[in-house]
Amino acid sequence: MKKANTPSRRRGDLMSPACPSRDVLKHLTSRWGILAVVALQGGSTLRFGELRRAIGGVSERMLAHTLQLLEGDGMVERIAHPVVPPHVEYRLTPLGREAATRLRGLAEWIEGSLPRFQKVWKEQGSADRLAR
Amino acid sequence: MKKANTPSRRRGDLMSPACPSRDVLKHLTSRWGILAVVALQGGSTLRFGELRRAIGGVSERMLAHTLQLLEGDGMVERIAHPVVPPHVEYRLTPLGREAATRLRGLAEWIEGSLPRFQKVWKEQGSADRLAR
Repeated sequence: MKKANTPSRRRGDLMSPACPSRDVLKHLTSRWGILAVVALQGGSTLRFGELRRAIGGVSERMLAHTLQLLEGDGMVERIAHPVVPPHVEYRLTPLGREAATRLRGLAEWIEGSLPRFQKVWKEQGSADRLAR
Repeated sequence: MKKANTPSRRRGDLMSPACPSRDVLKHLTSRWGILAVVALQGGSTLRFGELRRAIGGVSERMLAHTLQLLEGDGMVERIAHPVVPPHVEYRLTPLGREAATRLRGLAEWIEGSLPRFQKVWKEQGSADRLAR
């Protein structure tokens, strides 16, 4: 089962609708995907509840779904300790840590640029957003 | 109108549900948001139709919606030339170019890592994805 029996692409092309790299982009850049990867960054191993508390506003269902997709792409590892009651933890794989580096850079840029976005929104009269 | 009359946050916090930086994350990392920014990267000024052809698979409606959101966040500039028939072009603003740098890094990493993702999918038996 180790031998490839379907042709592998050498490199993805996100501009091409049929390229499977689009699935990775979709899973990774769903809002919760980014925040889950960023929350796990730094090598932490977190329990489901800890992750959920770290990511404000995520529902149990959406976090479970997000983690499943990231696990399916080999970026998150689910560690189930054989104890009663069940003790499940999540951590980034080496592939996930590479993704985390890029996402962390993006997240930090967005956070640090918020004053500039707020200036734009104000100039455009998006009062609803500023009122928060 | 230049003077702030609402308190500005110094820095966003994406982990906080009420922080408006989450809107930026959402607009920027919608699938079409990333691809539109990446397509405009490199300083190109593109017409709507050119952009649409660059981003395989995007509908006219979704691209228009994505560009509106990015324009609302001050990352994309819409240039309407006063001619008949109308000639509208899009380009990144300085803020958009900063975002593009981060997104380009992410997109290139995903594209370059596709063989590794395919290996993971094969090991996990995701035959449907490999069959594409």
